[in-house]
Amino acid sequence: MKTHTLLMPLDMHLHLRDGVMLETVAPLSAYSFSGGIVMPNLVPPVETLEDVRAYKERIMATIPNDYFEPYMTLFYKNYDKKFLASVSNDIMAIKLYPAGITTNSEGGVSSFNIEEMRETLEAMSILGIPLCVHGESDGFVMDREAEFMSVYELLAKNFPDLKIIMEHITTKEAVEMLDKYKNLYATITVHHLIITLDDVVGGMMMPHNFCKPIAKRPEDKEALLSVALNAHPKVMFGSDSAPHPQDKKESAGCAAGVFSAPIALQLLCDVFEKHNKLENLQTFVSDNAQSIYKICPEFKEIILEKRDFIVPNIYGTVVPMYAGKTINWAIQSVE
Amino acid sequence: MKTHTLLMPLDMHLHLRDGVMLETVAPLSAYSFSGGIVMPNLVPPVETLEDVRAYKERIMATIPNDYFEPYMTLFYKNYDKKFLASVSNDIMAIKLYPAGITTNSEGGVSSFNIEEMRETLEAMSILGIPLCVHGESDGFVMDREAEFMSVYELLAKNFPDLKIIMEHITTKEAVEMLDKYKNLYATITVHHLIITLDDVVGGMMMPHNFCKPIAKRPEDKEALLSVALNAHPKVMFGSDSAPHPQDKKESAGCAAGVFSAPIALQLLCDVFEKHNKLENLQTFVSDNAQSIYKICPEFKEIILEKRDFIVPNIYGTVVPMYAGKTINWAIQSVE
Repeated sequence: MKTHTLLMPLDMHLHLRDGVMLETVAPLSAYSFSGGIVMPNLVPPVETLEDVRAYKERIMATIPNDYFEPYMTLFYKNYDKKFLASVSNDIMAIKLYPAGITTNSEGGVSSFNIEEMRETLEAMSILGIPLCVHGESDGFVMDREAEFMSVYELLAKNFPDLKIIMEHITTKEAVEMLDKYKNLYATITVHHLIITLDDVVGGMMMPHNFCKPIAKRPEDKEALLSVALNAHPKVMFGSDSAPHPQDKKESAGCAAGVFSAPIALQLLCDVFEKHNKLENLQTFVSDNAQSIYKICPEFKEIILEKRDFIVPNIYGTVVPMYAGKTINWAIQSVE
Repeated sequence: MKTHTLLMPLDMHLHLRDGVMLETVAPLSAYSFSGGIVMPNLVPPVETLEDVRAYKERIMATIPNDYFEPYMTLFYKNYDKKFLASVSNDIMAIKLYPAGITTNSEGGVSSFNIEEMRETLEAMSILGIPLCVHGESDGFVMDREAEFMSVYELLAKNFPDLKIIMEHITTKEAVEMLDKYKNLYATITVHHLIITLDDVVGGMMMPHNFCKPIAKRPEDKEALLSVALNAHPKVMFGSDSAPHPQDKKESAGCAAGVFSAPIALQLLCDVFEKHNKLENLQTFVSDNAQSIYKICPEFKEIILEKRDFIVPNIYGTVVPMYAGKTINWAIQSVE
């Protein structure tokens, strides 16, 4: 049977939530991955050293038997230098949300006033704390990411020593930015390598493919594939796996988020193999992240095998992407 | 109290379904409207004279106390001249669906071969039977209507005496076609005058705003408003009110259709008043259709008044557009 081995896969954009949901989803990520950047958009958001440490403890309590490193983040606000220095050993990055742009982002940034942000962003530059950004304007849904490029340019020019990660990019405009500024990086989800808006509202309306940023046009997907499949050194895998209970998805007002963590590596093998680029998956799913974030995960080996894997209809209360469908790759062993 | 009177309002694109659903929705249309073009996409579709007459009887049985004229249609296929002559008194139009493009359209047209369609379309031209068209390609969801313009041009040029109705148009490209070919007309829904893709997937995902063609960009909505509000003589109101049971909408694969029939006139008053164009609503909602289709409905007077109307959460099993929300206009009386 054909197999493919991945070493220390990393999920550089992950929502683990809290409480019962955390207990459901964290072990699933911990099984497949060596570690992941854990998003801070809890209610209330993760904003203090105590928040970070307590959340990390709650995460670790759900995964006693697996090796998995939750790389912790703070919710961006204008923090002072002294505070940032005091937390820098406990966090891997700070995540910036424009206010109200996605799930639990109400307390985010409502205008990009560089002077107001300068102390924080300069301190982050000096301390080597990357800034992870949800890059969307409040414009028309299909234009939001492209419209945000001017903010990325503003940040990249004003803070040349700040590592800026364009999170879960979905457009050719964002892909083009990668080679324009040396301090811009990106994460890409697995679902944005597979779906377009057609898979959200082109046939039946599919709430389990509904996420933010929304999946875009075919040419955008092609642009994402071109850098992911070739393991462009500035792109990393980040699932943006974002669980919501089934009743919040299949409802009159459906929450945004695709739950992909337990099927992400299987799907990635499938996508990369179909494009004859399986040899680049290791770089996309781990090596680039190790270089960009300067992290050295402990040894973990995932062997995938090419056989049918029927995705469960539900994990706890959460319907995954591809529920009930078959993926051509399965996890054989984890060591 | 401010009132506004509408005479013989007509809904030139209406889905009444069948069975229990028909019993739920037909009386709601019959209350507000003088008549409507009834779409033939039942399962199986309405394709024979017997189908037409039997369906009309079933419709009339649900509305014993209201005056309402169901203008019947056939599901397009390549019919011969003789058949068309024999049904022309029983139908108002023939509705063409590209195969598989929307609800119950599997038996539709899969390629636009003019020579194969010539006998049917020439007979329709001679008999004065308009062709109503669901104008979408099978391309990317946001491009489908614009891509279909070449088919409209092909039909309009080859059959200059055929009245072609571009149904439920949603784009500026379709609006621009109106003045290019004398035999092209259009219906416009009320929801496409109000919503864009932002109202479908821009915040929460809203299944009750999900329809085909999908609501497009802000500039498309503006183009639709420009012709509707000014009662362009070639545009007519057609609700495309398309009921589905709540459990088919709020599900993992949501059916396409906005149910607007019982709130359409109220919403239209609101939209036209907000744009200071209330004086044009009568033309948009009745007079243009009377001229284009050459119909003379019996007298019916609807008086609307400007007061809060809270839209019911559900009609039978169907959640309407604006469920639970307030519209500023209500129906005062029907005579």
